Amino acid sequence: MAITKINGSITTPQGFKAAGLHAGIKKEDKDLGLIYSIKPASAAAAYTLNAIQAAPLSVTKDSIEIEGKIQAVIANSGNANACTGKKGREDAYDMRKATADLLHIPEHHVAVASTGVIGQPLPLEHILTGIDKLEPEATEAAARQFSEAILTTDTFAKSTCYTAEIGGKTVTLAGTAKGSGMIKPNMATMLAFLTTDAEIEPDALKLVLKKAIDQTFNCITVDGDTSTNDMVLVMANGLAGNESLTPDHEDWHIFAELVRTACEDLAKLIARDGEGATKLIEVDVQGAQNDTEAIQIAKSVVGSSLVKTAVYGSDANWGRIIAAVGYSGAAVNPETIDTSIGEIQMLQDSQPVAFSEEEATAYLQNDTIHISIDLKIGSGKGKAWGCDLTYDYVRINASYRS
Amino acid sequence: MAITKINGSITTPQGFKAAGLHAGIKKEDKDLGLIYSIKPASAAAAYTLNAIQAAPLSVTKDSIEIEGKIQAVIANSGNANACTGKKGREDAYDMRKATADLLHIPEHHVAVASTGVIGQPLPLEHILTGIDKLEPEATEAAARQFSEAILTTDTFAKSTCYTAEIGGKTVTLAGTAKGSGMIKPNMATMLAFLTTDAEIEPDALKLVLKKAIDQTFNCITVDGDTSTNDMVLVMANGLAGNESLTPDHEDWHIFAELVRTACEDLAKLIARDGEGATKLIEVDVQGAQNDTEAIQIAKSVVGSSLVKTAVYGSDANWGRIIAAVGYSGAAVNPETIDTSIGEIQMLQDSQPVAFSEEEATAYLQNDTIHISIDLKIGSGKGKAWGCDLTYDYVRINASYRS
Repeated sequence: MAITKINGSITTPQGFKAAGLHAGIKKEDKDLGLIYSIKPASAAAAYTLNAIQAAPLSVTKDSIEIEGKIQAVIANSGNANACTGKKGREDAYDMRKATADLLHIPEHHVAVASTGVIGQPLPLEHILTGIDKLEPEATEAAARQFSEAILTTDTFAKSTCYTAEIGGKTVTLAGTAKGSGMIKPNMATMLAFLTTDAEIEPDALKLVLKKAIDQTFNCITVDGDTSTNDMVLVMANGLAGNESLTPDHEDWHIFAELVRTACEDLAKLIARDGEGATKLIEVDVQGAQNDTEAIQIAKSVVGSSLVKTAVYGSDANWGRIIAAVGYSGAAVNPETIDTSIGEIQMLQDSQPVAFSEEEATAYLQNDTIHISIDLKIGSGKGKAWGCDLTYDYVRINASYRS
Repeated sequence: MAITKINGSITTPQGFKAAGLHAGIKKEDKDLGLIYSIKPASAAAAYTLNAIQAAPLSVTKDSIEIEGKIQAVIANSGNANACTGKKGREDAYDMRKATADLLHIPEHHVAVASTGVIGQPLPLEHILTGIDKLEPEATEAAARQFSEAILTTDTFAKSTCYTAEIGGKTVTLAGTAKGSGMIKPNMATMLAFLTTDAEIEPDALKLVLKKAIDQTFNCITVDGDTSTNDMVLVMANGLAGNESLTPDHEDWHIFAELVRTACEDLAKLIARDGEGATKLIEVDVQGAQNDTEAIQIAKSVVGSSLVKTAVYGSDANWGRIIAAVGYSGAAVNPETIDTSIGEIQMLQDSQPVAFSEEEATAYLQNDTIHISIDLKIGSGKGKAWGCDLTYDYVRINASYRS
């Protein structure tokens, strides 16, 4: 498909600016960021499925519901503004208003996102003072400042950028994300923001985002916990000048692939940067009853603490893989399962195959580990991504608040 | 209720003998055990829900199905005889036959259980030689040898014993179990064996066992993994001489409580001895929509890697608790949740309550941590048990096979 990865960031699509700075929520790192589009952009978002949702999510929903358009995102790290009650909602609305005032745009054109510790009141004064200092720019450096400002226990900033010809115009789509802990199928403590200059109506944008998320962000797991603050948001400001994208547009599938691929890149970066992780694990399932069950099995394997610790220890423990297949809840034939780690086959028709332990251990020392499983009962296929479970995961999370 | 905990073991109920020895499956520890009843006993068992089930499970099902009676259990540790195909099934039948020959009883009066590494052929010669050396005795020491022979990464042998007056007769019920990793709701890498001299028909025994398991073994989690080998088995040989127990028996509820309490003891011992665990976590939920949802929430909290690491780090991180309540899938009102750790209240109506961090940290250094949650939307209540997630969990599982 005619999509091309390019060096770029959320300010690469036309008309987008960004900023990030240290407002004083964290001790020293950047903790407040802004994305701004020079014209109102179609917007779509997906939110955590946790029944306890942080205040900023309801504020963002409020904003997007009115016109399906936003022009700015204000995001902070260091404090999730979750379980903060009425005061937390007021604080989130105050963040929205201050940002709207700064940019001279309507309040409902601002989305709000927060990530960090749960249940502490937001240090609103620091945030409001910080907002006043934000000076969005259309530079790579400014985009990077935003990407850094949303990090919590992440060890690196995450971004990706793609371009494609759509209806004779060059459309660019970029994204940035933060992840780390509480990452699990069906969103995670993750924030992801996508910017594009494509012309597309909000409803069509929502459609394409939902489908992309199901195959990407909803297929990653770090520790099985789902946070109160997850949000994936896309802004499309139309500056590329293409004919508005709908499912009937001849290049619809190209745009869908642009969104899906950017989401997959960010999802894999989040999995690779799971708390304490040293390796990205990719589980590839085929031959399942259907695609949904293939993904279910892939998630079960990549989410198994025993598989994760075995990968950390470079132990080719396929027994734990097949056990996780077995308890996934998906249909399996216990007699027909093939399993490989990398190119090394370990199970054929559910029976152990002789393999070189040395070769397997050597392969498991790579920083990306592929596990493939063929159930041979149908044509369903799917993937999921995760990371190993390490001493550092325990260290980080046994002392997160301190 | 008139049940009394006594010092005792699986050989305390009348007519039970046991044995355990080192057969050579493990390097030096005991790895082969036998329970024997001097007369055929009513039997009931529950098995893992994993779709991949180890060979011994099907052999035990075969045995129990014929008459609902067994007279002996042969169990080994060090090798799970799982994913071992046709040869594995033959090996399990050979274990059964050798045990029947030793004891001069029909083959279908023998149950077989295995635990340990998956996918390695059973070292059958060692096992058959070991079986020939087993000399079951009705002593406490022999019971302990059995309890030790079924351990894998467990750090201590687990047993419990209760007595009660039933229909004017003294009935004794005891149990032993092994757990450690792969422990999760709906069974676990766990084996549990209960012996009782109560008189009861197999169908009634099955009924009482199922109910007890739902409230005990199915409410513990160590790492969310469910093994291929789980089994809980109860033998009732009738030597107490009570009138046969049925749900209509006036002391039925006493017997049910005997079984439930013994199962709860063993379940908690398994949770406390989870791989690398330093603390037992008990989560007590009330005010849920119904009992099923209360248990669902309790399991979600006790299974959260973030809650488990926070408990390990003695961090009163109630934000992670409420996040796990939120993603449990059970109905909640996000505005009405109360939460306490020990006696220290942290949330009232979903809002943080001021508390002494010092007091909380001091409490979290105990070896049993109670977390209580009141949803205030209904009258459902339930409990679940688990353990903290520690460096040692990672160490043990990153190098299990080696």
